[in-house]
Amino acid sequence: MGEGLEGIVAAATRLSHVDGEAGQLTLAGYAVEDLAPHASFEEVAYLFFKGRLPSAGELDAFACELSARRAVPHALMEVLRECAAVQAAPMDALRMAAPLLSLGREEEPLDDALTAIAAFPTIVGAYWRLRHGLAPVEVRSDLGHAAYYLYQLTGADPSAERARGLETYLNTVCDHGFNASTFAARVIVSTRTDVISAITGALGALKGPLHGGAPGPALDMVFEVGSAERAEAVIVAKLDRGERLMGFGHRVYRVRDPRADVLAGAAERFYSAGGDRKLYELAQSVEATALRLLRERKPERRLDTNVEFYTALLLHGLGLSTELFTPTFAVGRVLGWSAHCLEQLRDGRLIRPQSAYTGPTGLQYHAPAAAAS
Amino acid sequence: MGEGLEGIVAAATRLSHVDGEAGQLTLAGYAVEDLAPHASFEEVAYLFFKGRLPSAGELDAFACELSARRAVPHALMEVLRECAAVQAAPMDALRMAAPLLSLGREEEPLDDALTAIAAFPTIVGAYWRLRHGLAPVEVRSDLGHAAYYLYQLTGADPSAERARGLETYLNTVCDHGFNASTFAARVIVSTRTDVISAITGALGALKGPLHGGAPGPALDMVFEVGSAERAEAVIVAKLDRGERLMGFGHRVYRVRDPRADVLAGAAERFYSAGGDRKLYELAQSVEATALRLLRERKPERRLDTNVEFYTALLLHGLGLSTELFTPTFAVGRVLGWSAHCLEQLRDGRLIRPQSAYTGPTGLQYHAPAAAAS
Repeated sequence: MGEGLEGIVAAATRLSHVDGEAGQLTLAGYAVEDLAPHASFEEVAYLFFKGRLPSAGELDAFACELSARRAVPHALMEVLRECAAVQAAPMDALRMAAPLLSLGREEEPLDDALTAIAAFPTIVGAYWRLRHGLAPVEVRSDLGHAAYYLYQLTGADPSAERARGLETYLNTVCDHGFNASTFAARVIVSTRTDVISAITGALGALKGPLHGGAPGPALDMVFEVGSAERAEAVIVAKLDRGERLMGFGHRVYRVRDPRADVLAGAAERFYSAGGDRKLYELAQSVEATALRLLRERKPERRLDTNVEFYTALLLHGLGLSTELFTPTFAVGRVLGWSAHCLEQLRDGRLIRPQSAYTGPTGLQYHAPAAAAS
Repeated sequence: MGEGLEGIVAAATRLSHVDGEAGQLTLAGYAVEDLAPHASFEEVAYLFFKGRLPSAGELDAFACELSARRAVPHALMEVLRECAAVQAAPMDALRMAAPLLSLGREEEPLDDALTAIAAFPTIVGAYWRLRHGLAPVEVRSDLGHAAYYLYQLTGADPSAERARGLETYLNTVCDHGFNASTFAARVIVSTRTDVISAITGALGALKGPLHGGAPGPALDMVFEVGSAERAEAVIVAKLDRGERLMGFGHRVYRVRDPRADVLAGAAERFYSAGGDRKLYELAQSVEATALRLLRERKPERRLDTNVEFYTALLLHGLGLSTELFTPTFAVGRVLGWSAHCLEQLRDGRLIRPQSAYTGPTGLQYHAPAAAAS
C-alpha cells in the first residue's frame, strides 16, 4: 500500500542524503558535521544552487545577489501589521505574508528562490518586532545572512559568536531529504507553477506539529529537570506516566541524529564563549539520563537524540523565544525548498500518485425529498 | 523507481475514484454523469463531508452554514486591491489572498474548509471586478453557491440556466482522485497543520500549466477553425507542424474522459436555451475531426477528448473570460481539497516518501581561498 509513502522513492536528488541506519546526513556531497559549523550560509546556498562551493570572488558576488533581495513589498508589511493586530502566531504571519513576495515581480525560478531566502529574515524579524509593539528596523545589506536575521529581530548588530551559532543552525537544518515540507514544495512545483507558490505550500506543512519542527517541548523538559541530580526522578516519572520524551526518536534515524552532534558542538562553543556553561551541562546530563532510561525501558525502540534537543538549547542560548523556533527553522529550510524546486523544474515530471478507493459505487442520485410540512 | 509516483498508491480515499481504462469517475459513490448535472453544489459538498446525500432539511441547514461564511476579512480585500494595482493574474490574486482567510479566526478543520469553499466565489468575483476598475458587490446569502459566484463576478442575478450550467461544471470538477493539487493538500495537512495552509498549497499547484487546468487553448482552436468545413485543414496543418491538440489526451484516462460528456451535455443544454447552437455545433465538428485525425495519425497514443475541451465551451458560453477558467476550476476543486484534508486528518499519517541520492559523497570542506589581490 505504501501508506504515507514510507520507503517509496518519489524522485532523485543531488541535494541531500539521509542515511538513517548509519546516522549520516550528506549535504550536496559534504557531511553535515564538516560543512555546517564552518561554511557561511551563503556558501551553503551557493553549493545548493550550483552544485559546488564558490571561490572567494563567486561568493562575494552571490552574497550581493542575496542581500540585494532583502526588502519586501509595502503590501507584505501591511499584512504583517494586520497579523500583529490579532496577535497571529509567527508561523501564520510568515505563511500569510510570503505569497506577497510575488507582488509586482515577474516569475522566474532562480529569482523567486533567492528572493524568498533573502526576505525570510526580514519578514520574521519585522513581524516579531511588530507583534511586540516595536517598529521594524531598516533593511541592510552590510551584514551576512545569519547576522542580518538577528539584527532584524533585535535591532542590534549581533556578536560574531552569536551570528556563527545561528549560521551553524541554519546550515544544519537547511535540507533533509524528502521531509513533508520539501516534498510538498516538489509536488506543487512539479506542475510548473512558480517557486513562491511552492515555498508557500511548504511553509504550511512546516507549521504542522508532526513535521518535527517543534523543539520547544525538548527545552521545557530541561527546565523542568532544573538541576542534574533531579534528571533521573523527573524522567522516570514521565516514562511511568507513559509520556513521550520530546527531543528523542525520529521517523528516519535509527541511531543518533548527526545534526544533534553538530548543534551540541555549536551550543557548547556558544555557551562557553558566553561564560555560562551551566545550561549546556544540564542539557548534557538530561540527555545522558534520558538515553540510559530509554534503553532500559524500551530497548526495542532505538530512540536516540534527535535534532530538536540541541536546537532548543542553541536557539535559546542565542536569545530566541520558543515561538521563534519554527520560523527560524523556516529561515534555514527555505534554502532546501528553493533548491529542490529548481531541481524538480530541471529534472522532474508531474508528481501524481494513485489513491485506493474504499468508498461505495453505483449509487443512484435522487433529489432530496421536500421536508415534511 | 516510481518517478513521479505514477501507479503508486499514496493513501486510501472514499471521496472519488478515477477508472482511467473504463473512463469512469465516481464521486462518493455516484457516477459523475448521474450526480453532476442534477445535484446542487451544496448537495455535493454535503455528500463529500458527510458521506451521504442530505435530506431537504439537512440541505437547508448546510446551505446556511456555507452562505454565512461568504464574507472575507478587510485585510484580504486590501491584498486584492494591491494585486489589482499591479494587474496580477486572477490565480495569483487568489493564492495571495486565500491564506488571509485564517486572519482573526481560530483554526478548526471543518470551519476552515467551509470558509474556503464559501469565500472563494467572493475572492475571485471581487478581484475580477477590482481588476477591471469596478467596485466589488455586496456579499449576499440569498443565492445558491453557483448563482452567488456569477453574481460576484457580474453584479447581476444570473438566469437559472446560467447558474445550472455553472453548477454542473463545479460539480463535475470538484474532485478527481490524487491529482497534483489534491495530493499537495494531503501532504501538507498530513503534518496536522491547518486546512487553509493546505488549500493555499493546492492553489499554488493548480496554477501550474502541467496540472491540466488550462482549457483556454482548446477554445482557441475552435475559434481558429471558425467554421466546420475548415476543421480538417486547420487540424491537419497543426498535426503536420507537430503541434499538440489542446483538449485531447490525459495522463490517467485512456478513453474518453467522462467529464467531457457531462460538460458537453451541459453546454448543449445551455447553448440551446440561449438560442445559439452554432458554437456548440462547431465545437462538436472540431472534436469529431480531431478524434478521426488523431486515430489515423497516432493510433498507438489513445488520445481522446479530455475535460478541457467542453469546459472551455461551457465557461465561454456562461460569459466567463479565459482568464477566469483556472480560478473557476479552483472554485469547484476547493471542495475536493477540503474534503481530502478532513479525510487525511481523520485517517492518514504523515506522508513522507524517500528520495534517491544521486550526488557526490565524501567531499571535504575547505574555506574559499581569498581572491587574488
